[in-house]
Amino acid sequence: MIKPRDELGTAMTDSAVRIMLLGSGELGKEIAIEAQRLGVEVVAVDRYANAPAMQVAHRSYVGDMRNADFLFSVVEREKPDAIIPEIEAINLDALFELERDGYFVVPNAKATWIAMHRERTRETLAKEAGVPTSRYAYATTLDELYDACERIGYPCHTKAIMSSSGKGSYFVRGPEDVPKAWEIAKKKARGSADKIIVEEHIDFDVEITELAVRHYDENGELVTTFPKPVGHYQIDGDYHSSWQPAEISEKAEREVYRIAKRITDVLGGLGLFGVEMFVKGDRVWANEVSPRPHDTGMVTLASHPPGFSEFGLHLRAVLGLPIPGEWVDGYRLFPIVAPAATHVIKANVPGYSPRFRGLSRALSVPNATIRLFGKPEAYPGRRLGVALAWDKDVEAAKRRAERIAHTVELRTRSGGWQSQEFIKKMHLL
Amino acid sequence: MIKPRDELGTAMTDSAVRIMLLGSGELGKEIAIEAQRLGVEVVAVDRYANAPAMQVAHRSYVGDMRNADFLFSVVEREKPDAIIPEIEAINLDALFELERDGYFVVPNAKATWIAMHRERTRETLAKEAGVPTSRYAYATTLDELYDACERIGYPCHTKAIMSSSGKGSYFVRGPEDVPKAWEIAKKKARGSADKIIVEEHIDFDVEITELAVRHYDENGELVTTFPKPVGHYQIDGDYHSSWQPAEISEKAEREVYRIAKRITDVLGGLGLFGVEMFVKGDRVWANEVSPRPHDTGMVTLASHPPGFSEFGLHLRAVLGLPIPGEWVDGYRLFPIVAPAATHVIKANVPGYSPRFRGLSRALSVPNATIRLFGKPEAYPGRRLGVALAWDKDVEAAKRRAERIAHTVELRTRSGGWQSQEFIKKMHLL
Repeated sequence: MIKPRDELGTAMTDSAVRIMLLGSGELGKEIAIEAQRLGVEVVAVDRYANAPAMQVAHRSYVGDMRNADFLFSVVEREKPDAIIPEIEAINLDALFELERDGYFVVPNAKATWIAMHRERTRETLAKEAGVPTSRYAYATTLDELYDACERIGYPCHTKAIMSSSGKGSYFVRGPEDVPKAWEIAKKKARGSADKIIVEEHIDFDVEITELAVRHYDENGELVTTFPKPVGHYQIDGDYHSSWQPAEISEKAEREVYRIAKRITDVLGGLGLFGVEMFVKGDRVWANEVSPRPHDTGMVTLASHPPGFSEFGLHLRAVLGLPIPGEWVDGYRLFPIVAPAATHVIKANVPGYSPRFRGLSRALSVPNATIRLFGKPEAYPGRRLGVALAWDKDVEAAKRRAERIAHTVELRTRSGGWQSQEFIKKMHLL
Repeated sequence: MIKPRDELGTAMTDSAVRIMLLGSGELGKEIAIEAQRLGVEVVAVDRYANAPAMQVAHRSYVGDMRNADFLFSVVEREKPDAIIPEIEAINLDALFELERDGYFVVPNAKATWIAMHRERTRETLAKEAGVPTSRYAYATTLDELYDACERIGYPCHTKAIMSSSGKGSYFVRGPEDVPKAWEIAKKKARGSADKIIVEEHIDFDVEITELAVRHYDENGELVTTFPKPVGHYQIDGDYHSSWQPAEISEKAEREVYRIAKRITDVLGGLGLFGVEMFVKGDRVWANEVSPRPHDTGMVTLASHPPGFSEFGLHLRAVLGLPIPGEWVDGYRLFPIVAPAATHVIKANVPGYSPRFRGLSRALSVPNATIRLFGKPEAYPGRRLGVALAWDKDVEAAKRRAERIAHTVELRTRSGGWQSQEFIKKMHLL
């Protein structure tokens, strides 16, 4: 792991400090921007050209990150000071080997290995970290899946053992849904559905992400700093809207920090983690963990001060730079500057060269703005932008973000204008 | 001039909206980042490779922007939707010709022509806009300079007719300083010292920049929106620290808006203007105008909400997009989210590959951050970074920004570590 850092050089010169982003989507793009603002050199890698982070990077490489040789070749060529995975579809063996060779893989190869695999995650949360989780069971055949669902009880959730963005997951209401759940896992998983995990359904009040960040403080001590919990809702397992702070009790908030601390202590390394949890009253269950900035954390682009979004926090942590924080009752907290919310802007058609309209109205709303990620291609469900809003309270910010996102229409080369109304569920307005 | 815009495409595809930055320093870099965040394609141009804005642009060109053929060739190749001058050393004839050819030069070629020339600026402010200015006179020989200083009265200021960043300016305390003033103008002007202007010394309370922005509103009407005045101090004519809001009376603030409105109405076009003024009590004098974001306006990176820094405001304006605002007593105002301040981080040695240290302490200060611009080369007085701070009041923010900036030491390949203490004047701490 790298040491505390007091010094930075200048990108594109021989004094440069250099980061490599493995995965160059909208999250990597904001990390790249924060790096650029500190004169840090940015190398972006992804499977397609002109990915969002590539557009703000110093150099970029297109290739298959599941291929170890490709990873070795770009890393050996660039010799980055930090290798920052942004996605899960990365060759793990290569990350372990690079780490053995002395490269700093963020937060570390083992945490990435754990987080990309649902079974390892579950075991780490429930057993190693010893934090509350929903009950769970595994299945490798359709028969076992019936059994597992029966044991956990209906309704329950089924998930492919390796995937992301909710792909391959299903909400199983009763035995009649089991074959469909099996099919979805097998067909939609982004990774592997060799094993399927069945999870107890928690009838939560709110789903939250705690963006805990492990970093050095001014004295070179490794500390964990806790931003306010981010509330969010998902549609079909994919993030749709988020807000900060989440409306949870003080007691639940402290439990969130306690759980996040235990989990991130087990995972180790440096960087920001998105620890997903369910909250019901004062009770909290750990659900998932991403050893990197989290989709829902885009809200910190508006709720945190400039330079301290989850991307800025992650960048400082992985460079060995400090982050100011305030100790309150045993936890080091990072405050918000304004209650804020996000709402995704998604495509519902495939095609190249997305265009967006309705911007005149969307951008006239006070206390709000939008980001368009610059993705060259759309497909149904692909996130192409996000609305950000802030207000006196999160409820107002949520409504504002939703209103703006729904004002934007989009089209691709192959189709007509489409509104955001194709996703009607769970909306406030 | 371009029309109100409701639609944006995607960078690097055939639906792209494209901007070209003429000048790619730290101000252009932030414009480029705002553009990237809306999926707008960015082409950066400057006289040297790896200029700050180039590092976050889609493409860049290195060449002499005083050369008309170079400008024509890059513009014709890129066909930008907006040409955004960031500096003054640009071939004006080329800008006029490009405008005649239908290109949108921001805010327009004439305003750029006026602002780059001290005599034209003075005449425009005093006569066309009819706003209060200090008294002034011209000289083309040393004898005339003695006469002009005598007429205006000592102390007074002498300035080369075409320059920037205070180069070629001198504060003349008495007749004994006139030869030195002559020499400085002739030797240091960035542009031309064929004529020297002598200006009355106003014993102001505070020097301010009003970042007035001409843009379309939601209904397609051209309106002017006024951020809160930015206070600043300069050392040897170059910006050293700035803060927002400036501590001026309500009456002076309204006079600031009135003067900025008259001047920007005369200059016309779309975009943000930095209108520099002197304030003493309730009295206000117009001094200079930059038809583009202003050094001192970097404070809006911290004082304005995300996406609405002076760079975000400029970008929206020049794309024909709206900016929310609030009508108060006849002026459309843009509010701050927090009192904030900046303090420059400068080199005092020449050399390549700047390095910065002291970051562990500098970045541990709460409610503050720094930006390092990524300039590949230092020279004495060159601005390489800026400290940003925010607080409950500007006085506290100013102290904080100064403290952080002074914590940073820098060196180049050729020399040892240097503190920021080489500039001692006018500091608070």
